[in-house]
Amino acid sequence: MPINTQILLDTRPTGAASVANFKLIQRETPALQNGQVLVRHHYLSLDPYMRGRMNAGKSYAAPQPLGEVMIGGTAGEVVQSEHPKFAVGDTVVGMGGWQAYSVVDAAQPGALRKVATTHVPLSYYLGAVGMPGVTAWYGLVKIIAPVAGETITVSAATGAVGSAYAALAKARGCRVVGIAGGPDKCQYAVDELGFDACVDYKLHKDAMSLSQALKDACPNGIDGHFENVGGLVLDAVMLRLNAFGRIAVCGMIAGYDGPPLPMAYPALILTNRLKVQGFIVSEHMEVWPEALKELGALVTTGKLHPRETIAQGIAAAPEAFLGLLKGKNFGKQLVKLV
Amino acid sequence: MPINTQILLDTRPTGAASVANFKLIQRETPALQNGQVLVRHHYLSLDPYMRGRMNAGKSYAAPQPLGEVMIGGTAGEVVQSEHPKFAVGDTVVGMGGWQAYSVVDAAQPGALRKVATTHVPLSYYLGAVGMPGVTAWYGLVKIIAPVAGETITVSAATGAVGSAYAALAKARGCRVVGIAGGPDKCQYAVDELGFDACVDYKLHKDAMSLSQALKDACPNGIDGHFENVGGLVLDAVMLRLNAFGRIAVCGMIAGYDGPPLPMAYPALILTNRLKVQGFIVSEHMEVWPEALKELGALVTTGKLHPRETIAQGIAAAPEAFLGLLKGKNFGKQLVKLV
Repeated sequence: MPINTQILLDTRPTGAASVANFKLIQRETPALQNGQVLVRHHYLSLDPYMRGRMNAGKSYAAPQPLGEVMIGGTAGEVVQSEHPKFAVGDTVVGMGGWQAYSVVDAAQPGALRKVATTHVPLSYYLGAVGMPGVTAWYGLVKIIAPVAGETITVSAATGAVGSAYAALAKARGCRVVGIAGGPDKCQYAVDELGFDACVDYKLHKDAMSLSQALKDACPNGIDGHFENVGGLVLDAVMLRLNAFGRIAVCGMIAGYDGPPLPMAYPALILTNRLKVQGFIVSEHMEVWPEALKELGALVTTGKLHPRETIAQGIAAAPEAFLGLLKGKNFGKQLVKLV
Repeated sequence: MPINTQILLDTRPTGAASVANFKLIQRETPALQNGQVLVRHHYLSLDPYMRGRMNAGKSYAAPQPLGEVMIGGTAGEVVQSEHPKFAVGDTVVGMGGWQAYSVVDAAQPGALRKVATTHVPLSYYLGAVGMPGVTAWYGLVKIIAPVAGETITVSAATGAVGSAYAALAKARGCRVVGIAGGPDKCQYAVDELGFDACVDYKLHKDAMSLSQALKDACPNGIDGHFENVGGLVLDAVMLRLNAFGRIAVCGMIAGYDGPPLPMAYPALILTNRLKVQGFIVSEHMEVWPEALKELGALVTTGKLHPRETIAQGIAAAPEAFLGLLKGKNFGKQLVKLV
């Protein structure tokens, strides 16, 4: 059996996460038991939700246990199989974690999914045609539920969720405006991702200033917003929401590394009769087939061609993850493992 | 025609509202034109929403114009009529404003509604069987939508909305816990209004402390909350909300008189997949008949017997209103005009 390289959560962060919280080890891969499959990971997905798992406190999921392999989505190939439905060479996605190989109980529902790489690159199953894409779909379709002609916004616009959101929004006839950090990302959002406009939050020191920029980009106000960031960005958007605006709350990355960030203007929820709703896409598995079908079609027809930032080798994962939390990635953050 | 006594909005508040913002005048009532009705008001309703109208800023409704009679719900009797559907002596409710008499264009839909006082006291049509009651009904039934056995809470528990909420909640098999200011109100909430428990927010200096008291009163957590107050109370409730909790946002009275109060822990919206939704009951006229029918039945069968605080005479309205904003009233705040 091959030697596996793994990254464990070694300590929990106090304040900002750091590379010292992680530990790289090597150990032999155990022999397969009946029903198990050995997967060699080609790509590891890095996603903001992982930061929440590093804390001990109550959140929507159990904390990542100390001393165990960090949780994470993976795409790879079957290299050994003791399960009749999986053959060596099958391309698969699963939750293999931060490691080079994983041993998967393939009979467990949802543990491993075969994917075709004829029209969709393997890595996309961790992004546009995977969890981030379905996340965009759920927030847009099930919470914001826009009608054609409405103006909708998204923070972290050039990320894996934001880029899928733009394509899904344009398919529904919306004006879609991104919020991203820096001129390069904003230019890319408009030129490549189909956003009608993109506002650079780094140009603004406070919510009022950012809100004014949003007013210019959204002359008819904002009808729906998909929140990945929180803090100043959320405050600024709320100041521009129209009556009966909807906010899908998917992430609050601005507050993950420090004390909780307040919402400055909650009275707007009343005065503008807003709906603000949080969700976790893994609790809505019933929508995945419909969402993945639409996302796959958008990729195949060239309407969704997301950017990726790819770190090389499992040892690069902690640095890449910390960069993701600071917005240093450009598009979907992956680690290439082969 | 009788001499009318009116209270106008004279100036807008800067910071806290004061009696100096109001002006009492007397003027002759104009002669009726065809289709008009002269109503003598028996009761004027005082409600927190009026504070928002005193400001010039954007809110869900147009500001109260300066120099005009303050807006307000009224219950009274027809004393002259030039409309075939209204006769002298009819008891009616409408939006007559802060004055002794009003001239109403009775043909305008919803302007004037005849009510029966055989089983329901006239004043109740401004509270339990009126706008506040329907407000409680809408937030509970349409936003919180509890199932039997769930624990739900309400702030300003002994007010007009809170007392109706308790009766509606018990009819649905919920555990209902109030939040009110002071031992007398909390005792009354449990002894007379049917709350299973009531927490005195005045005993707590911060959200964490109030949250602990809520934990004791809600051992299974909170599934739904009706917010009339905002600020510290809302923060404390959010810390105790279960996954998939719902918050109906009806009022944020704690922030009406000063700078906007932040929400301390918005990340809980994500981690607990909360839905936070604001509403204005006057935008949902379609539910009023159903809601009023249930509320009327609760009153008639003795399951809802709300308390009233009644100020005497139109000149007492400003002081009574300012007291309402500070929580000095106990139950529905009215002004008796005859």
